[in-house]
Amino acid sequence: MFTHRLEVRIEWGDCDAAGIVFYPRYFAMFDAATHRLFEAAGWKKANLRHEFNIIGFPMVDTRANFLLPSSYGDDIVIETRVAALRRSSFDIEHRVLRPEGLAIEAFETRVWSGPHPDDPSRLKGYEIPATVRRRLSEA
Amino acid sequence: MFTHRLEVRIEWGDCDAAGIVFYPRYFAMFDAATHRLFEAAGWKKANLRHEFNIIGFPMVDTRANFLLPSSYGDDIVIETRVAALRRSSFDIEHRVLRPEGLAIEAFETRVWSGPHPDDPSRLKGYEIPATVRRRLSEA
Amino acid sequence: MFTHRLEVRIEWGDCDAAGIVFYPRYFAMFDAATHRLFEAAGWKKANLRHEFNIIGFPMVDTRANFLLPSSYGDDIVIETRVAALRRSSFDIEHRVLRPEGLAIEAFETRVWSGPHPDDPSRLKGYEIPATVRRRLSEA
Amino acid sequence: MFTHRLEVRIEWGDCDAAGIVFYPRYFAMFDAATHRLFEAAGWKKANLRHEFNIIGFPMVDTRANFLLPSSYGDDIVIETRVAALRRSSFDIEHRVLRPEGLAIEAFETRVWSGPHPDDPSRLKGYEIPATVRRRLSEA
Repeated sequence: MFTHRLEVRIEWGDCDAAGIVFYPRYFAMFDAATHRLFEAAGWKKANLRHEFNIIGFPMVDTRANFLLPSSYGDDIVIETRVAALRRSSFDIEHRVLRPEGLAIEAFETRVWSGPHPDDPSRLKGYEIPATVRRRLSEA
Repeated sequence: MFTHRLEVRIEWGDCDAAGIVFYPRYFAMFDAATHRLFEAAGWKKANLRHEFNIIGFPMVDTRANFLLPSSYGDDIVIETRVAALRRSSFDIEHRVLRPEGLAIEAFETRVWSGPHPDDPSRLKGYEIPATVRRRLSEA
Repeated sequence: MFTHRLEVRIEWGDCDAAGIVFYPRYFAMFDAATHRLFEAAGWKKANLRHEFNIIGFPMVDTRANFLLPSSYGDDIVIETRVAALRRSSFDIEHRVLRPEGLAIEAFETRVWSGPHPDDPSRLKGYEIPATVRRRLSEA
Repeated sequence: MFTHRLEVRIEWGDCDAAGIVFYPRYFAMFDAATHRLFEAAGWKKANLRHEFNIIGFPMVDTRANFLLPSSYGDDIVIETRVAALRRSSFDIEHRVLRPEGLAIEAFETRVWSGPHPDDPSRLKGYEIPATVRRRLSEA
């Protein structure tokens, strides 16, 4: 399945009063990492609307195991991989890597979503297009 | 086990370009909710250091299922409950409630942590004091 | 001019590794405070679109002077006041108050903005409706 | 005076429901940009404590003028420049550049701060070391 690596610098503002990353910030990094994987696959988020009438892929389930902390000034690598593709949803895995080893393992399930036909202010899951499915299935 | 309810107003800045809460923001709200539960139980975060030599309770594992979206101007309730108490770690459950029903279910495992004796810049798990354990076990 | 007071609890996640509020967080609080002032005046952000075809009031100029720090567990009051009303823009002042005195003075200029007629993905300033202007002029 | 350029990708999570950057996020980017300028000058934030007994350089005054919006997927450049050096405080200017031109002008005044001798939980301004002053004065 498709894989992408994103290097992230931990900033002062990412850390809490204990001097380590405030964990909600990791989820923002993972969200960015998923968007970057799509961009590497050929679809920039800003273009999904025009190409597929998709507004986004909201999170339905996410989990993270925190094994090693990081602090400001650290450079981490987020290795992001498509783990499963279903009709209108998909799974992503993120592994945060530090020089000492695996720092975080995270999983997420998202739904390929566009405007609801009955109410454009709401979202509705749509079938993932074959071209996207094919590309994300590549190693 | 000890339970606490926190009312949260969803702000414009909590939402993303799809007009719904950017999910990492929920984890910041859950972190606040856990701190408020401790405060309701008698221990304000700012005093934990002085009373127990504890710097915090870093997250080791967290998961969230997102069932219903929320948008700016919405008022949600976060119902937070101690789900398990172990020697130096504990589990918390959060349920986000909306007028239509359950919006999010989240789980977290945290470690009761103070300065490492060998290196005060690092954290180490400590035994949860009996007084804290007793109070958090109350209904 | 119209004034509103908002009480804010400083959370652990609002603070940086020096243990004081990471200043960008104050701007998020000020943004919320401006929205709450409008809500107190009768217009909830979520309804502005329907009532006036307004998407928001983007910031064009903001300044803040930080006099006293705050830390997690502190309760601050943000006193927000309409300082000037022009054709399509307005000024807001925020004063953060602590028990010891004035903690922050902040100023902002925003534009009353709706979808651009030539391109709905862009914003354009519109005249502030008389009903809004009248209400915000009240003491 | 010393200058540094930082490229920043605008992420989905940086944007609000109007689809443009939620302005408090720019201040987090500017904070990172100031830290990167110091790092480029030879001092990583994580080492300031050890080398100069400095915890950070808290903001005392900041201002930003927003001329052009940015949206997710945009790449911006933050050009950061030391504008003034005083005994224990300094001024920084940030210019956000987009292909169409200048997007934001921002100014900040910070204080070179370490632990207060009477109370290490508080901060106190210290004289900026000659070696730092010399380096930041370079073009």
